[in-house]
Amino acid sequence: MDISALELYLVTDRGLSCGRPLVEVVQEAVKGGVTMVQLREKEASSREFYELAVELKKLLLPWQIPLIINDRLDIALACDAEGLHIGQSDLPYPVARHLLGKNKIIGLSVENLRDVRQANDWEVDYIGISPVFGTSTKTDTAPPVGLEGVRRLTKESVHPAVGIGGINLSNARQLIEAGAKGVSVVSAIMSAPSPREAAEQIRNELRKARQ
Amino acid sequence: MDISALELYLVTDRGLSCGRPLVEVVQEAVKGGVTMVQLREKEASSREFYELAVELKKLLLPWQIPLIINDRLDIALACDAEGLHIGQSDLPYPVARHLLGKNKIIGLSVENLRDVRQANDWEVDYIGISPVFGTSTKTDTAPPVGLEGVRRLTKESVHPAVGIGGINLSNARQLIEAGAKGVSVVSAIMSAPSPREAAEQIRNELRKARQ
Repeated sequence: MDISALELYLVTDRGLSCGRPLVEVVQEAVKGGVTMVQLREKEASSREFYELAVELKKLLLPWQIPLIINDRLDIALACDAEGLHIGQSDLPYPVARHLLGKNKIIGLSVENLRDVRQANDWEVDYIGISPVFGTSTKTDTAPPVGLEGVRRLTKESVHPAVGIGGINLSNARQLIEAGAKGVSVVSAIMSAPSPREAAEQIRNELRKARQ
Repeated sequence: MDISALELYLVTDRGLSCGRPLVEVVQEAVKGGVTMVQLREKEASSREFYELAVELKKLLLPWQIPLIINDRLDIALACDAEGLHIGQSDLPYPVARHLLGKNKIIGLSVENLRDVRQANDWEVDYIGISPVFGTSTKTDTAPPVGLEGVRRLTKESVHPAVGIGGINLSNARQLIEAGAKGVSVVSAIMSAPSPREAAEQIRNELRKARQ
């Protein structure tokens, strides 16, 4: 995959969109400069998930922004998404790769050194270090690894990494300085009064980190 | 598909197995004569669903009993199940057929005449008329269609039908007499003190209906 797509990676959460339609929030965020979008739906029916995925795919295609589906390989296949993001409780990586083929992006959530070492044996396209900071977005997560953890895990990984969990304007730059190739952002964009401005500001911070 | 597989169609529900491991209950039910098994998991993680599916596939293969996966096409692909059962809130039939190919079984839940007529335009392998009677197994269902509904819907359908919802030893035979090719049973087997005996008894009732 093109590693620059990892830079500002929006992960959706309809529960955090403050009542605004998901597609609208994503569209604004895209205008603000997000480089990849992950559709994460934990409550939707398969039909609803599929229809949302098709809508997002249509929105993102002209921008050449990859659409990644969280967990559900069937939805990824059904909407011909660019990739799939799996966690440690989702389909095993080898099964997902076999069914998706070599040309699709597969990202894997890692929480510790053991997960990173296992990922090193696989041709995952990126790892998502999770959670970096404490967050209210997900309640079923492992303890935060912090910036020190990001440093340790990115050093061990043969794959490019993004950090996720409590990432916002104030700490995004530190993630890059700790070795991540990008940041995964949920509420700092999904819940922002202007998702577009929020994305722009984080993108600017990330540019500074690379200078 | 071989229509005789529809005769006594077990649909799993771990919440109704009275604490017994799912695979044990299914194994007993198989010994009692169930002809097809649908793995339905609404709460499991993808990993857990996948692992259960692989286990059931291994159990059913020597018996030549088809394993059908509820809703999740990715799990069906991952465990190479014989088929997929979809409801009206799951992936659209044409999408599921395209991804699964012609050789797999696809069953579709129908609740009314409109659903049956739509199914008539598709190459579904069977329809599941749902719910026939009131049931505590599922709470998100349409109003029961009753035996009169089964008669009306099977008459309209070009596909073989099973009935589901509140089916047990006392009413299984009536379903067949109303035009269904088989019965889908959940709690009457899953919660039975002896799933084997429960399956045997229902199977005997169904034989009488065919005589």
